[in-house]
Amino acid sequence: MESTRECYCPQGFVASGLHAGIKHKRHDMALLATVDRQPARAAAVFTQNMFVAPPVVASRSRLAENGGQAVAVIVNSGNANAGTGEPGMRDAEAMCDAAAQALGCDPKHVLVCSTGIIGNPLPIDTILEATPKLATTLSVEGSEDAAKGILTTDSEPKEALFAGSTFTIGAMAKGCGMIAPNMATMLAFITTDADLPQADMQRVLKEAVDATFNTLNVDGATSTNDTVILLSSGKRGVANLSEFTGGLFKVCEELTLKMARDAEGMTRLVRLRVTGARDDADARVAAKNIAENNLVKCSWHGGDPYWGRLLSAAGSSGASFNVDRAFVAYGGTMVAMSGAPLPHDEAAVAEHMKGDEYEIEVHLGVGSGTAQVIGVDLGPGYIKENSKTS
Amino acid sequence: MESTRECYCPQGFVASGLHAGIKHKRHDMALLATVDRQPARAAAVFTQNMFVAPPVVASRSRLAENGGQAVAVIVNSGNANAGTGEPGMRDAEAMCDAAAQALGCDPKHVLVCSTGIIGNPLPIDTILEATPKLATTLSVEGSEDAAKGILTTDSEPKEALFAGSTFTIGAMAKGCGMIAPNMATMLAFITTDADLPQADMQRVLKEAVDATFNTLNVDGATSTNDTVILLSSGKRGVANLSEFTGGLFKVCEELTLKMARDAEGMTRLVRLRVTGARDDADARVAAKNIAENNLVKCSWHGGDPYWGRLLSAAGSSGASFNVDRAFVAYGGTMVAMSGAPLPHDEAAVAEHMKGDEYEIEVHLGVGSGTAQVIGVDLGPGYIKENSKTS
Repeated sequence: MESTRECYCPQGFVASGLHAGIKHKRHDMALLATVDRQPARAAAVFTQNMFVAPPVVASRSRLAENGGQAVAVIVNSGNANAGTGEPGMRDAEAMCDAAAQALGCDPKHVLVCSTGIIGNPLPIDTILEATPKLATTLSVEGSEDAAKGILTTDSEPKEALFAGSTFTIGAMAKGCGMIAPNMATMLAFITTDADLPQADMQRVLKEAVDATFNTLNVDGATSTNDTVILLSSGKRGVANLSEFTGGLFKVCEELTLKMARDAEGMTRLVRLRVTGARDDADARVAAKNIAENNLVKCSWHGGDPYWGRLLSAAGSSGASFNVDRAFVAYGGTMVAMSGAPLPHDEAAVAEHMKGDEYEIEVHLGVGSGTAQVIGVDLGPGYIKENSKTS
Repeated sequence: MESTRECYCPQGFVASGLHAGIKHKRHDMALLATVDRQPARAAAVFTQNMFVAPPVVASRSRLAENGGQAVAVIVNSGNANAGTGEPGMRDAEAMCDAAAQALGCDPKHVLVCSTGIIGNPLPIDTILEATPKLATTLSVEGSEDAAKGILTTDSEPKEALFAGSTFTIGAMAKGCGMIAPNMATMLAFITTDADLPQADMQRVLKEAVDATFNTLNVDGATSTNDTVILLSSGKRGVANLSEFTGGLFKVCEELTLKMARDAEGMTRLVRLRVTGARDDADARVAAKNIAENNLVKCSWHGGDPYWGRLLSAAGSSGASFNVDRAFVAYGGTMVAMSGAPLPHDEAAVAEHMKGDEYEIEVHLGVGSGTAQVIGVDLGPGYIKENSKTS
């Protein structure tokens, strides 16, 4: 049992999580730290939203100033500390200071993340009071509590592990988009004992995020707080970079699928592949427009292979589109070609649509660019969760 | 009674509508024509979707070839004749031919529109069979039946009238789902007895469409079939162009609001004004991103003045954004400034949110560009309407 848990915490890291009192009952804080309180190498990818939350500002500036190092990451859920202005900035700094004091490290080596409702002051006293206990309960097994402490209305913790030949990657995440009334953030924390140059870490992390988390489109909303952090203790020595990259992609992909399946109100996960685009960038434009289109998402909810809506969304995306050579396939069965229905195996398509995962290809009929996104349907559950007054 | 109806049909035009049998029971066809079967001057604005329906191709090419003239417009609802390929093109031409034969005019002077489901073959026999009756029942009073014949999921016909000093403008439209800037399954037919040069008609129609129909954003989806046609009989002589333009804007605005209030599943209409943008184009980008954001739309459904979601949508729109100078106001009451809550009259905001029309301003804090969109909330009714299997 212990050895299984240990796997989620690569050598050199400890973690903890607890209920501080921000939420009514569930865990609402987490701490990740190096065992020896020495800085690990750190890389991070943050939200591209210009309305950015204070903890993102604080973490980004620390990494920029210290060249990519961190002893710890302190996290709270239940309140995003976003839309909180100058007081929010002071609160984010106070969280770093408190963690540094409890750990005996430099505050410049503490990163901070918050997730939850936007626009409400952080209950900073509650947070500061709980921070020493987070530090004293740090352990290898604590990653389980930490994975709970970062959740908002996710139904369960999300962890992933990759055991490489000479290293381990452990990761935890909380869901992306439409997580609860007034929440919409994804956070992921990844640790490894591989020894890698910081520049490589930053580059492969960005690539992995683009190929996995950034292909997930729950509702088109970009949060104020999204953060993915990769920490390396280097305890197990230099790793093969391509093996590490493969492992990193794998854990990110696993977390992405866990987030998609736990997206609020979702009943269908869709792997939407756009092909035949002018180039990959154009394919991404079309894929995003299709996956965010509410009429398309409703058709997925209804299990309806309504290809016309997909082509209509592709045709209005701004991507190059040649209707005469375009086609749409559900579960590998082509149902429409040249803008008109195609005789096809209707039973096979009906069978595919009964499942809870769809494979859909939309070919734009122009070139050889491709893109894939993970989309979800739009059902009543989403509205129920997101229209409650705060 | 008759005189009221007559107002909706400016001099020189007649109309009819009936149940042909495309739908189960409701009216599903309409015909507009000149009284004397001589060509009226015609201007039109069509969808910008690249996946365009055959009737749009047919109407657009006719107007391009004949320099902007039309004796008649034949319309069916219940089937969009979109995603129907070559057979769909032949069906659109057949509708024009049948109307021309019944009216005794050149098929090149007949425009055609279809609206309804995408990807199913048009029931062309049903349509051709009903066309002679449409022609024989043409009358001034027939515009009421015509306004019914163009509807899809609309709950009621939408008409508007402007009585100018020397001319009349009559208009009818259908709206509902799939409505975004650049129109979407919306059709509007506008007739006038003012005598105007075709080039002026086309210019002012484009301006009016941009200022009205194109500010309506129901679900961000751009349809395959959108068409707005303006016909001028010239029966009452030359009109003052600025008076005409004002009248045209007015009927288009009235129809836009009627479409918004009848949008699928909507319970709240939102006049969203983006101000303080770098320029008007940037303001439109932000306004579109806010009005299409499902988290924002859910907050409108719940009557929740959740300004953080609006700023988050603005911040991720790609428009220039300065959080330190940005603000959000509901019903004229500023609730947030510089990315943080502002003490405000909460009772006034709560009162405003109880209504079914919201006035919301999002100031981007950059320049003096502005844009307005008409948005609607996202409620369970929309999903119910759009997830049914076809």
